[in-house]
Amino acid sequence: MSKVLVLGGGGFGTCLSNLLTENGNDVYLWEYNEKVRDVIRKEHENTVFLPGIKLSEKLKVVDEYQKLLGEEKFDFILLATPCQFLRGILKNLKTSLTYKVIIINIAKGIEIASKKRMSEVVEEELDGCDYEYGILTGPTHAEDLAKKMPSAILAASVNLETAEKIQKLFNNDYLRVYTGTDLIGAELGGALKNCLAIAAGMADGLELGDNSKAALLTRGINEIIRIGEYYGADPKTFFGLSGLGDIIVTCTSKHSRNRFVGEQLGKGRKLAEILESMNGISEGSETIKALHNIIVDENINAPIFTELYKVLYEDETLENLFYNLMSRKLKSEF
Amino acid sequence: MSKVLVLGGGGFGTCLSNLLTENGNDVYLWEYNEKVRDVIRKEHENTVFLPGIKLSEKLKVVDEYQKLLGEEKFDFILLATPCQFLRGILKNLKTSLTYKVIIINIAKGIEIASKKRMSEVVEEELDGCDYEYGILTGPTHAEDLAKKMPSAILAASVNLETAEKIQKLFNNDYLRVYTGTDLIGAELGGALKNCLAIAAGMADGLELGDNSKAALLTRGINEIIRIGEYYGADPKTFFGLSGLGDIIVTCTSKHSRNRFVGEQLGKGRKLAEILESMNGISEGSETIKALHNIIVDENINAPIFTELYKVLYEDETLENLFYNLMSRKLKSEF
Repeated sequence: MSKVLVLGGGGFGTCLSNLLTENGNDVYLWEYNEKVRDVIRKEHENTVFLPGIKLSEKLKVVDEYQKLLGEEKFDFILLATPCQFLRGILKNLKTSLTYKVIIINIAKGIEIASKKRMSEVVEEELDGCDYEYGILTGPTHAEDLAKKMPSAILAASVNLETAEKIQKLFNNDYLRVYTGTDLIGAELGGALKNCLAIAAGMADGLELGDNSKAALLTRGINEIIRIGEYYGADPKTFFGLSGLGDIIVTCTSKHSRNRFVGEQLGKGRKLAEILESMNGISEGSETIKALHNIIVDENINAPIFTELYKVLYEDETLENLFYNLMSRKLKSEF
Repeated sequence: MSKVLVLGGGGFGTCLSNLLTENGNDVYLWEYNEKVRDVIRKEHENTVFLPGIKLSEKLKVVDEYQKLLGEEKFDFILLATPCQFLRGILKNLKTSLTYKVIIINIAKGIEIASKKRMSEVVEEELDGCDYEYGILTGPTHAEDLAKKMPSAILAASVNLETAEKIQKLFNNDYLRVYTGTDLIGAELGGALKNCLAIAAGMADGLELGDNSKAALLTRGINEIIRIGEYYGADPKTFFGLSGLGDIIVTCTSKHSRNRFVGEQLGKGRKLAEILESMNGISEGSETIKALHNIIVDENINAPIFTELYKVLYEDETLENLFYNLMSRKLKSEF
């Protein structure tokens, strides 16, 4: 049995907290929003972010995690907050962590101004702390996983032993956990698929049909591989659960918030209005800003992401996006 | 303007015949079924295989193609029949072809007894004839393409110039054609995705959710790559339109017959009964037989295709398929 602190009670954070509790661990869940904490504590359900799922009564809800870190000795800390709140959490951890711990991150994104991956942000903020680091990423929508529908996920760390510890912690008869050591590729796949999902959603909103969407995803994953080269990722990783798998589920599932943003844009709504009306964050609409900087600075051939950025932030029309993609010069596939 | 003979008036054959006619070519369509020929000729619609699509009045319907081959000089012959009828057609062509022609094949499968790819079958049967050979493959369901929804496809030939001739023939403002020279990889992707689509359909039929299906497709494409090694395919090709693209569209689209077969199996129907009730062929349920021979003979690690074969032809239950996939020994992703 391990002692686990989960920071962030969104849909996936809540789902994994419950899974880890049911796997027999001693799990403490902290969430920023007090109302969410209260409802989980009283009703054993996260009615805001994971409605309809009965949570284990053994799952403990935490109001102040910094204090707790001094009182209890945790084996694992699961970071489950949106990317934009990550640095704040890490600053708190740095002042509270006095023992070695395994940190697992599930936030997927790239920091806009610095173009940094989340593991680089962690490294920067926790400089001097003693920890092992890994991520958990793959095609696992919380809504289905919480219903115990069979799923597979990747535990990635530069250190295989750390990845294997994470694998053992989460694996059970409905979640099959694979290990990988290409941390860069695994976290990029997760970040960039959120952008591609917005484009896929646009195809849905415009009702362009199955062929268009499949072509968009296929050409999109090839752009992701080219961007991965800039970061030094292993191309193979993008064809695994953290890349292709997550792309498929995010771009086709009704549960994806990023795909939803694209779909609403395709139906003619404005980005600001869509984001405001949503319950939760669209990481893709932030990550695309960092991505666009990289594409321009490094002169990467990425027509889909370039057009997507223009639609989101430069008033390009959606019709132009698809027209521009179709009418380029005839070429070979690779 | 080119003169094109299309052999096979199924959904895709009909759709491409019409597209080529509208691209300004002189197109002759032959179909085995006399009733289908008659209805296309009289009503300019293939009410059996592509209902609801008005066909060009310039598209000519042919009753006897062997005679016609002697009377007219064709630039292209498009083979659009199911794999099992291909040898018969090719034997007819061999006796009728007296001039050089470009042969384009769209049938996707592997011959069961011989394990031969379709291009090998063509080579064997047309031995001594003067022709160039290429295939057209990718995520292009006839139903959407016929409605002029934006699509992308691969023209593959060992000879780049041949691929470029096919590219120019088909490309227009709603069908973007890419070229490739890895003929082996391109035809394998098309053949094997039909098998994977059956497994994906089973996940649908069992209502296992989005995560399960994404994991299945991701692990499945990695099995396809391993099988491709046996044939000497370039792994990269499987991440293009003919592999990944076609897998995505086939495994997620309501139009796919192979996915439909799996879905019905998932709902508890029997294979023989499903196949009998269908309008059209499920190539995947045949190709899996060849695939299973290859997997066993070459000792390839392909748990999904192995379990799929057992469910289809050895009375394994569907529940066992997914249970066996989830409960294998923990491992790394690659």
